Amino acid sequence: MSALTGDALATAVLAPSVVAIVGASDDPTKTTARPQQFLAQAGFEGGVYFINPRRETVQGVKAWPSLRSLPQVPDHAYVMTGAEAAIEAVRECAEIGVPVATILASGFAEDGPEGRDREDRLCEAAAGRVRLIGPSSLGVVNPRNGVMLTGNAAFGEPDTPKGGIFVASQSGSVIGALVSRARGRGVGFAGLVSVGGEADLSVGELCEATLADDGIESYALFLESLRHADKLASFARAAGRAGKPVAVYKLGRSEEAAELAVSHTGALTGSDAEAEAFLRGCGFARVGHFESLVEAPALLRQVPVRGDEGAPRIGVITTTGGGAAILVDQLATRGMKIVGPSAGLLGDLAAAGVDIPHSLIADLGLAGARHDIVSAAVRLMQESGEFDLLVFVIGSSARLNPELAVEAIAERGGHDVPLVAFAVPEAPEAAALLQSSGVPAFRTPESCADVIASAFTRRAATIGPARPVQDFSTATVLDEQASAVLLADIDVPMAPSVALDVADIGSGLPLPFEYPVVVKVLSADVAHKSDVGGVVVGVEDDAGLEDAVRRIKSSVQSAIPHVEVDRVLVQPMVGEAVADVLIGYRVAPDVGPIVVLSTGGVLAEVFADTSVRLAPVTAETAREMIAEVKGLALAAGYRNSPKGDLDALAQAVVAMSQLAVSSPEVAEAEANPVMVRRDGLGVIAVDALVRAVGGGADEVASSEAAASVSL
Amino acid sequence: MSALTGDALATAVLAPSVVAIVGASDDPTKTTARPQQFLAQAGFEGGVYFINPRRETVQGVKAWPSLRSLPQVPDHAYVMTGAEAAIEAVRECAEIGVPVATILASGFAEDGPEGRDREDRLCEAAAGRVRLIGPSSLGVVNPRNGVMLTGNAAFGEPDTPKGGIFVASQSGSVIGALVSRARGRGVGFAGLVSVGGEADLSVGELCEATLADDGIESYALFLESLRHADKLASFARAAGRAGKPVAVYKLGRSEEAAELAVSHTGALTGSDAEAEAFLRGCGFARVGHFESLVEAPALLRQVPVRGDEGAPRIGVITTTGGGAAILVDQLATRGMKIVGPSAGLLGDLAAAGVDIPHSLIADLGLAGARHDIVSAAVRLMQESGEFDLLVFVIGSSARLNPELAVEAIAERGGHDVPLVAFAVPEAPEAAALLQSSGVPAFRTPESCADVIASAFTRRAATIGPARPVQDFSTATVLDEQASAVLLADIDVPMAPSVALDVADIGSGLPLPFEYPVVVKVLSADVAHKSDVGGVVVGVEDDAGLEDAVRRIKSSVQSAIPHVEVDRVLVQPMVGEAVADVLIGYRVAPDVGPIVVLSTGGVLAEVFADTSVRLAPVTAETAREMIAEVKGLALAAGYRNSPKGDLDALAQAVVAMSQLAVSSPEVAEAEANPVMVRRDGLGVIAVDALVRAVGGGADEVASSEAAASVSL
Repeated sequence: MSALTGDALATAVLAPSVVAIVGASDDPTKTTARPQQFLAQAGFEGGVYFINPRRETVQGVKAWPSLRSLPQVPDHAYVMTGAEAAIEAVRECAEIGVPVATILASGFAEDGPEGRDREDRLCEAAAGRVRLIGPSSLGVVNPRNGVMLTGNAAFGEPDTPKGGIFVASQSGSVIGALVSRARGRGVGFAGLVSVGGEADLSVGELCEATLADDGIESYALFLESLRHADKLASFARAAGRAGKPVAVYKLGRSEEAAELAVSHTGALTGSDAEAEAFLRGCGFARVGHFESLVEAPALLRQVPVRGDEGAPRIGVITTTGGGAAILVDQLATRGMKIVGPSAGLLGDLAAAGVDIPHSLIADLGLAGARHDIVSAAVRLMQESGEFDLLVFVIGSSARLNPELAVEAIAERGGHDVPLVAFAVPEAPEAAALLQSSGVPAFRTPESCADVIASAFTRRAATIGPARPVQDFSTATVLDEQASAVLLADIDVPMAPSVALDVADIGSGLPLPFEYPVVVKVLSADVAHKSDVGGVVVGVEDDAGLEDAVRRIKSSVQSAIPHVEVDRVLVQPMVGEAVADVLIGYRVAPDVGPIVVLSTGGVLAEVFADTSVRLAPVTAETAREMIAEVKGLALAAGYRNSPKGDLDALAQAVVAMSQLAVSSPEVAEAEANPVMVRRDGLGVIAVDALVRAVGGGADEVASSEAAASVSL
Repeated sequence: MSALTGDALATAVLAPSVVAIVGASDDPTKTTARPQQFLAQAGFEGGVYFINPRRETVQGVKAWPSLRSLPQVPDHAYVMTGAEAAIEAVRECAEIGVPVATILASGFAEDGPEGRDREDRLCEAAAGRVRLIGPSSLGVVNPRNGVMLTGNAAFGEPDTPKGGIFVASQSGSVIGALVSRARGRGVGFAGLVSVGGEADLSVGELCEATLADDGIESYALFLESLRHADKLASFARAAGRAGKPVAVYKLGRSEEAAELAVSHTGALTGSDAEAEAFLRGCGFARVGHFESLVEAPALLRQVPVRGDEGAPRIGVITTTGGGAAILVDQLATRGMKIVGPSAGLLGDLAAAGVDIPHSLIADLGLAGARHDIVSAAVRLMQESGEFDLLVFVIGSSARLNPELAVEAIAERGGHDVPLVAFAVPEAPEAAALLQSSGVPAFRTPESCADVIASAFTRRAATIGPARPVQDFSTATVLDEQASAVLLADIDVPMAPSVALDVADIGSGLPLPFEYPVVVKVLSADVAHKSDVGGVVVGVEDDAGLEDAVRRIKSSVQSAIPHVEVDRVLVQPMVGEAVADVLIGYRVAPDVGPIVVLSTGGVLAEVFADTSVRLAPVTAETAREMIAEVKGLALAAGYRNSPKGDLDALAQAVVAMSQLAVSSPEVAEAEANPVMVRRDGLGVIAVDALVRAVGGGADEVASSEAAASVSL
């Protein structure tokens, strides 16, 4: 028997015919007694065996001494023992052919060297035949068939709501919390898995295995870190093909939570901007509010993934102007564009008896809270072709008089133009009715706006297959000329330059370009050239060049005595630019190759004015990045300032991002500054830095490309 | 009889002995029939009269033809008629001495010229004797005594929760929504008023009048705009003295909502940054989440207003690490500092049987969800002196097993170190128990963090008494020299300068400072000097000066033919600066005098990198402003960059802000750029612009101060 994958794996995890609870307790108050209670309460109809070598019965049911002693082979064992006993249980699973074991115990990889050793032994015990969920897994729940392999007290509550959402979470306790927050709101689940330490099965592989399950319509992931990013990426591509949307809540927006994630999970967490780029590249909708995780899936199923259609047109209808203003505020601060009904549509509405004033929102007024008016207003607005989404903000009637507006709204669910609802008062019954009628309903204006923004800003998955993990430990920094040659070779526009031996200066060798020029020390050992007096600008003639080289040699050698200044790089002065930016590339841990665009200069970091995407990117994505960098607003013609050549900039970003495809040896690369000149004049990078494996300066400089920019 | 104010007003509004409902309906389904139903249901024990000239009875109770016909004079009339009839009703109130009338009708000032005329007539009808709430008021509710002067359907639900919060709202529907969101959560109200169009009584005056009411512990305001800011300010000062905290949700964070506010309320809405400065100056806690408005007051009562104690130390205790990480993320992205228990405290905890790992949070683990452990952990942390606030993040037990953690947490409420709770699952009963035990409980991690941040970032009210409204319509722009003289006079450090008549150039007049100098066209008619070639830098000698003047004259006159270049301003070149900033001042509509600090250059606007406060400010506030401007991070020594003289910058901000006190004639002033030099070298402004009433350039330039900086 080999290890299960795909459908067979999904079946063993979520729809096992026979399960075993290893370490089941007879004491009904114990965590380890709960699965027995939960399975019975949920009406699980398959076979269940309880393993407890120290007892004849547990809670009145026969207990078996071991997995080996069972009369049939379970499809899924939930192992609730301590860590060492869990390893033994997994060994038994491998022996008798139990294909999936979920492990509750902690004390593995997150617990230092001893724990890591224990985790190695756990995986060895699985012997390539048992798929593991956990360790530290709070279990697996499938409300559709009563599979309750969990000791999570939250599932003591009967009737876990059934529905189409599959939840995978790196935090076990969050699963119960999500169920409680979905209860009574018309939101339900097709499965929930606490993945624990992901020693074997990761979020990505588990989710991908379930994609063929017709009962699963969408996914909600709670992530603490991007472990096993390759599996997540594979799932992302498959989910995109299957048309099943994925909502993600990922911790670590703050450095503090990232720190907590490290100590909590033992995983390395990259910067949030990188994670954001990764999730975006996966086509996932990242939500910013915790409750959004259960509220988002319904809307994501209705909003198609957008391409370059421009800003979505969001219409707001309401019976309460004050309440609607709250939502408009929340939408607008997230960059969503609200559009009011056109004059023509207002006319059509009036003809249908719906008189509303010209405004950013369609305000029916308190008196408009009537079934006929609400129904006509929503229908005409849906059919107008003027909106990509409508939000109905319902007033007090939502709570006490659903017959006035709520029922009419519910009847308009399922139209091509999605309709969502936010009730200003607390109105759980209305929310449940709306939700079950295909009108996603939100409890707070903040989560409503959060989910709408996340739905419209997600894009199709672009993430490619994982490339083999590259060992960059031997990567070295190339000098400026070699770096520039490498980047020019992939079509990042670099200023022309010539490398001169200091010994040759004054020998009358002509420069391949006119004065004035810039002279820079050329050495891979000098990282910050300006800081050590290694740059002289505005050199006007041969004499100035000699003088500049003398000054550089003296300054650099007094600042860094061990560096021998043998060579300098000479560049023509680049004319005036509209803006200067940094274009960067790096292979980020977990996330893979990314491309970065940011404003130039020291303030870039202070303002975190950066756009990050998985590499490679298309020109369309590069333009999106340019729009995200605030410091480029001027170059886009803000306040009548001269426009920069943003098409050329987009091309340069695309070119840099191609390193991901063409140059697996490059660990990181940076063109900085890149001068953005006036529209039509292109962009040009005047400095470059590349760190790569096996890419010594001489090697690269002697390549074909080198000829085009050096002597 | 003169118009009621203060306590007497509050009594007539919130605790009238006799009320009248004008325009009461007999049809129980009508809005105008509701107050009768609501008053009966709430058990109002005072006298109630119903006015309906067309009927003998309404809903079985005698109807009176008019207010005049009543056998006694009501304390408060709720007028539910149309607009014109409402004016007549108010006239009757004035005649017979009804001191307060609340007006439901709309169609007043928000409705164009005709409506404004109607509002004038409404106010005239009140004849200085009747205080008006509204028009467009959804009414007044006092759950403490059954006063239900409202037609808002939301109050058809019995048992409006009683408590200590007084709500005043510019949106009527929001009041019912807030009550519904507070229900069952241990949060209750001492009164709710829909202020409507504030034709007479504004949020500020109403709230101030109620300050002596012992049943009101705190205030929650829902504001669409800052109408009647002077009254709000007066209330703010009095609330500060009374120690009653105020939470505010103000619309208009986005331009879209601001636009909506204008069309919705007819009020002018200033920029959100100005509103923020105003609310801050009032000492109010501005919350960012709608539900926070009902959740904040309980915490605000426990967190003292902070001064310069530095960042608050927030401790997080939990039984669910994953859940706590959500909250930590939310707190940290709002700039709140989480501190973990010290080694000593961990030792004390261990000695008390509470073993927790060293971390940013105190994670008791799932097994720690026990009364004894939770109780000991919270107690020791409260008593440690290491925290200003503790947040307990409760896991699944909050919903199903309150005896494990919730009860123990509830017992620790009321300690000097405030304790708040966030339950990761939906747990309304736990929230109600906690709340009523003095432990503010939050439903979402976002609102929890929002309220904590708003509580700790509020400051004592600094807003001064309103100054007489100044008419700036005749204000004129002073030229650069006059502007500089005015600012130097109030101790904003200005670069020395000398104004020269163009005619005198070349006559050998010595400059009062050394070359090199900057030469600038001097004319109040030239707003953007550089754009028209009006500035020449780096002038090295007398010949250069003559040449510069010639070039300026020619450039400016070809760019703006009608301007005669008669004078230039000459300044010494200011040496290298660490940063350049803008310090501004203006008298903002509604808000009053404000002072602005922002990064210099065009990007300031793009990044909105600005700090705004009501003027004047103290040095402490100026330092807070400096910390808020991100572009000044470099000048604060970020990444070992040279430190700028931020003390001098703070002094300059304070000086500029003193315009609010010393110079009522100034409408706006700007020093830009202000060069921030290295620490110890001060700051110096090299350009200035002032707009003032009656401040002609010659006038100011001939003042005493002028002598100190000009020839």
